[in-house]
Formats: sequence, C-alpha cells, structure tokens
Amino acid sequence: MDNGQRTTDKKMTDQGSVGIVKTQTCTLVQPPETFVLENRAELSPITVAYETYGTLNATRDNAILVIHSLTGDAHAAGRYSEEDKYAGWWDPIIGPGKPFDTNKYFVICCNNLGGCKGTTGPASINPRTGKPYGMSFPLITMGDMVEVQKKLIDYLGVKSLVAVAGGSSAGMKVLEWGLRYSHMVRSIIPIATGYCVTPQGIAFHKVAQEAIMADPNWNHGDYYGKQAPKKGLAIARMIGHITYLSDHSMWEKFGRRHLNPEKMKHDLTSPFDVERYLEYQGEKFVQRFDANCYLYLLRAMDLYDASEGYSSLEESFRRITCKSLIISFAGDWLFPPYRSEELVRALRANGSYVEYYNINSLYGHDAFLLEYHKFGPLIRRFLARVTGEEEQNIEGLREYEIAPSEGLLT
Amino acid sequence: MDNGQRTTDKKMTDQGSVGIVKTQTCTLVQPPETFVLENRAELSPITVAYETYGTLNATRDNAILVIHSLTGDAHAAGRYSEEDKYAGWWDPIIGPGKPFDTNKYFVICCNNLGGCKGTTGPASINPRTGKPYGMSFPLITMGDMVEVQKKLIDYLGVKSLVAVAGGSSAGMKVLEWGLRYSHMVRSIIPIATGYCVTPQGIAFHKVAQEAIMADPNWNHGDYYGKQAPKKGLAIARMIGHITYLSDHSMWEKFGRRHLNPEKMKHDLTSPFDVERYLEYQGEKFVQRFDANCYLYLLRAMDLYDASEGYSSLEESFRRITCKSLIISFAGDWLFPPYRSEELVRALRANGSYVEYYNINSLYGHDAFLLEYHKFGPLIRRFLARVTGEEEQNIEGLREYEIAPSEGLLT
Repeated sequence: MDNGQRTTDKKMTDQGSVGIVKTQTCTLVQPPETFVLENRAELSPITVAYETYGTLNATRDNAILVIHSLTGDAHAAGRYSEEDKYAGWWDPIIGPGKPFDTNKYFVICCNNLGGCKGTTGPASINPRTGKPYGMSFPLITMGDMVEVQKKLIDYLGVKSLVAVAGGSSAGMKVLEWGLRYSHMVRSIIPIATGYCVTPQGIAFHKVAQEAIMADPNWNHGDYYGKQAPKKGLAIARMIGHITYLSDHSMWEKFGRRHLNPEKMKHDLTSPFDVERYLEYQGEKFVQRFDANCYLYLLRAMDLYDASEGYSSLEESFRRITCKSLIISFAGDWLFPPYRSEELVRALRANGSYVEYYNINSLYGHDAFLLEYHKFGPLIRRFLARVTGEEEQNIEGLREYEIAPSEGLLT
Repeated sequence: MDNGQRTTDKKMTDQGSVGIVKTQTCTLVQPPETFVLENRAELSPITVAYETYGTLNATRDNAILVIHSLTGDAHAAGRYSEEDKYAGWWDPIIGPGKPFDTNKYFVICCNNLGGCKGTTGPASINPRTGKPYGMSFPLITMGDMVEVQKKLIDYLGVKSLVAVAGGSSAGMKVLEWGLRYSHMVRSIIPIATGYCVTPQGIAFHKVAQEAIMADPNWNHGDYYGKQAPKKGLAIARMIGHITYLSDHSMWEKFGRRHLNPEKMKHDLTSPFDVERYLEYQGEKFVQRFDANCYLYLLRAMDLYDASEGYSSLEESFRRITCKSLIISFAGDWLFPPYRSEELVRALRANGSYVEYYNINSLYGHDAFLLEYHKFGPLIRRFLARVTGEEEQNIEGLREYEIAPSEGLLT
C-alpha cells in the first residue's frame, strides 16, 4: 500500500499516461449548511481534494470513480511534473489505452472524508475553535465517505457511473456504492476486500491504536503545532505492512538476512533486513500521514458491516442490482479469498451478474497494487461487457493465473 | 499460550494428577566459575528454577524433559496447593496414567535461561553491580538455554532422556537437544515449531520490541524499582496473542460483537469483544512478566537457525540420530504445517525414524495448549514405541483428526 510510490509496470506504461495532473479542491458543504453524518453528528465545511482524467461525455454517463485504500490520496494517475519520480497510485491501469481507458472514460478519484490529503478530516481546522479538530472530529463511517463522494460526483455534473472500483478498505466503499446507488452505477469492482473486517483485522487495528495512543506525544490527539506522535504512528504502520505482505513474499524479499552477523551476536537491536524494511516504512509514513486520521480511518473500517440491519448478507445485497467484478488474491491473508467468495455467493443468490477471479499471487494483500498485468485485463474485459462494447482481446491474461477458489467457507 | 491458566481437559483429569508440587531452585554455576555463552560472553551465577514429577529409576534413564514456550515457567504440572485454581501449563498430559506417565517416567521442567520465573535472566541481580542486569545482560541463544538445561539434567543425576518435548519456541530447543545430545536422548517431540522463525515472525517480534522500547518507562531497560514499561509490554503481548489464535478461532470466540453498540457510533475507543480480550491479556501479562526478559527471549527466537553452519537443514540434521515425533496443527499460522514438513523431510532424508501428524484444529498456534485429546494419544503411543513397550491402545485418537499434509513447499 505504497500509494503508487513504485516504479510503474513496464507493460502498462507502454500504453499512454494521463500526463501531468493537478489535484483540485472544492468545498462541497459550506456553513451554515451542515453535513449530517450517520451518527447524527454534523460537520461543516467539507472540502474535498480530487483529480479527474479523461473527459466527461455529453450524456454525462462515462464516468468511473476509483477509490483509494486506507491512507491513499486523490492522486491515482499521472505525475505532478515532468520531474516527478512517482506516478499516481493506480497509474498502471488508468490512462489512454489502459484498462480504465481515459480515451473512453472520465475517471475520478478523491481523497476520502477523514483523510489528511486535502479532504476534511481530524487534522483540518475546526471553524468553531480555529484549531485542528483532533479527537473532537466526529466518528465517520464508510457510508459517510461514500456520501461525500456522491456529492463530488454531483458537483462534477456526472449523471451515472460506468463503474466504482477500489481495493482493500476502498472495496468496502465500492460495495456501499452498490448498496446505495445501484440505480446510477452500472457496475462495481471490489478488489481484495470483504463485507466487513474480521475480528483478526480489528485486533491488528487495536494494536495500532494502542501504539499511537501510548505515544506521549499523542496527548489525546492534541499535538498539532507540537511534536507529533511519530513513534507510535510508525509502530502502527509497521503492523499494517506485515499484513500487506505475505509469509511467502517476506521470504522472497528479505529471507533471514541481516545487516551485521557479528554485531547481531551481542546487540539486541542489530536488525534483520525485514526489520530495516519496517523501520523504513514506518519513517516514510509518519512524514506523510496524520496519526489522528489513521485512528479515524481504521475505526471506520472496523465499524463497517455491509450486512448490518439485514438478516443476512444475501438479503442486504438484494439492493445491489448492478454488475460486479470481484477479484481476490490467493496469497492475501488480510482479505483472503474466502472473504471475496462470501460476496460472490451473496450476490449470485440474488441472481446478480458477477464475475469472480481469485488470482494466483504470492505478494499478499499488496497484490492489488502490484499485479496489474494479471487483473488489469480482467477489468478491461469487464468494462467492455458493462458498456456493451465488443469484447476486448484479453492480452496478457493467462488461464493459469487464475487460482482455483479455495475459501474456507465453501 | 496461557501457561496453563485454563481449566484442564476433563477427559485428561479423569486420569491422575501429580498432585501438590513445589518449584525447586538450584544454582548450577557459582562464581568464580562462569558459564561461557555462545557469543563468548560469560555469566555467573546461574540459578535455575525447576520441577520434577515421578521418580528417577535406578538406571537413571527414565527421564523426560519438557520445555516451556516463550514466557512459560517450570510449573508444567500439578498445583501449588489444594486451593490452587490453575494446574501447570501441560498438566493434562503429565501425570500418572497420562501420556507423559509419571508412573513410568521422571518428568523434568525448568524455567529457561533468560526468563523471570526463578532462573537467571535480565531481571536478576548482576553480582558486579548489585542491581538488576537490564540491558547489560548478555545476549543469549537457544543453544545457551539448552546447555543450562543439560547442566540441570546432570545435576539431577539423569544418565539419559527418554524424550525431550515442547511446543512453539520450546520446539526449537527440542531440536537443539537432538542436534547436540542425540547420544543421550532417545527421542525428540518438537510441536508446532520450525527450524527457525520466518521473516514474518521476526517482523512481529520487531513490532513488539519497538512497542516496549517506545514506552518512556522502559528507559533503556533501567526501570527496576521504578515504573515498569507496562503499556509497551502489554502492546507487545497483544501482538503475540493475535498470532496465537487463528482467524477462524477469533470468529468463533469473538465474532464482531462489541460492548456498546450505541456508544460505538460516537466513541473511537468503545471496544469490540476481541479488543477487550487483548486488553485483558495485555494487563494480565504485565503482572507476571518482565519487559527486558521478553526482549531477550524474542531475540533468542529470532536468532535461532538449526541449519546454521551447514549447507542444508538435511546436512545439519544428520546429527539427529534419535527418533522424532513431529506434530503440527492445520490452523496454526505462526508455525504453519509447512514448517513441520521441512523438519520431517530433512530428517527422513537421513533415514531417521520420524512420525509426523498434522492435526485438524481451528485453534491456531494455541492448539498445543488446548487439543490434548488429539495429540496426547500420539505422544503416548510414540513413547511406548521408543521404550519398546507394548503399543498402547490409542484411546480417543480418531483418524479424521489427522489433517492431510498441506504445506506450501511440498
């Protein structure tokens, strides 16, 4: 979950780039108007950072919303300048000729409510106090984030969406789009996700929360203008990175290599390579992310349950009347294939059109930000089917890359 | 890894208990004599806490060494008093008529070197300073712990061991007994273990280490007589507990239940049941364990590699000439079955006698402290084979409980 700070896939960049892009900002809710959250708390103003690629057509129905995962941002594709080393986080599949083909589609991405990348969140100024909200920010839900995205879609003049797509926690928002707005969404593409976080997931989030709150600099969330709780946030992030990789990919990437075999015999902290990786990821993360935001976003994930208020997931999913493309990765243990299979079964029980692929990958959860050549073609073909275009040749899609379904619950 | 603080299995307690026991202490190394560690550092004195059950026979060859896992202690069986609510940590399989049958065997268990339950460790007094060692305690290895166990065995007058047994990190010491002392050990029983910790395991330990060291009370290990780093240690322990359970057992135990559905909509910290469990485990742990000890014991695990110094595990394992019973649990993701299969393959390649069972269990790693009725009978039969007794009727052993081998590396 590197937010695109990887070199992009060669095969994909042979196709076009969206080029130089700029993050836009708009204020969707202005005082005295307020936005009423699911828990009845009110929030105002709400500013949203977003990017768009491609052109909205005359009938305003060629838009696709892509949603970033936990700590991402609106910068899904392109580069900020010619010198920019890193492209947007899903750049390999967004652009002219790419699966999310900007020659055809108007692709939209925004920073989620509760974030710290231009959209209103716990680090934003509370107009009542003139200071950052911190822990006085109201608890937000996946549903709240979706409603803010809906406001952005309306603001941009979009009438209907060809697809809503995203991986991991974004996949939950994708599901929620299907549940709330199937009448204006032709398809959903939830990737490496589930209808809720498992108790194990909640447990990992708990440890992250504890690590942040135990940092004396956290100071009950009131650290703006002072030392931020960087140590606690770095520890929290390390836990995340363990869950994003797999046992196998860690063997491949790091093995049991270490920096200094001699020092290691005497010094408790002489690091293995995998430890240096975690340290690096922790340090990098605290430069770009806010600790309170992290707490709120983890909690929104914990609270999400697409079956809530219904007797079963199947009953809840009757509201999803659009088409679905569901993708999981065999090596993903944060959202293992069985979590996707739960979605597939509930949708199919209602007679919905569902394509499901469990992709052979040893990269773990991170595969949705890496294995573009495997799932990109699936997205391309699915979108062609959704829009009624002639089916594309699925270049690069090899049958063996689709792993047999192996859910625990089947 | 509750150190026996569970109600014991009914089926097992129908058989005899070792009764009321007392932890003994002996000093195995006295100044000016010193114990030379693997890293050439010297340590003295070395005191060891231990318990024994049953009677050493005249030929002094009926002893079994059971080894506790990471944070356990010498109290493997029996109770300290009639009122004692909790029996020792492996009580269901140690006692008269139980798999480790104290009518036949002289069972020994000691607190490991580096621990804080009566054996010399970082919390012990450094005779040179009159203060606890803290971080001045030398780095210790699994091999060092085994050498101290060997000294205890000699001290107790034991000539040879029928078996050395233990689960998780204790399984590594069991392997090391086989590697070093096959001439005096008739069998080894490593359970839910591997020849080393995976990079993922090292990564979890890293987060635990960071959490302890980030606690201001840790104070570079110098906290004795002051506030201990309880918060950091509790967080470290929470991570451990996540890895001891499984995704499945967490669904079973906690699901997504939470304390207060209404409060939860507004309060970021209103807990799910799984979070309360982790809090409870964290709090309980800091009452009984020392943070520096935890750091040293995690590190000893990280450093262990039974193949070190050899071109392959197979070559290293040529030193293991005794019989082996290897047990893994299908739902264990900390030491998954493939880790046991690595051991089995390396031993079988040398023509060694190996029994291997992968037990169907959804309890995760904790199964070695829970599924006694499944692996107890296997131990009983194996010991009968080792000692040449008539084979026991394997009461309670049902074939379906043995899962097919499903290692990634096969």
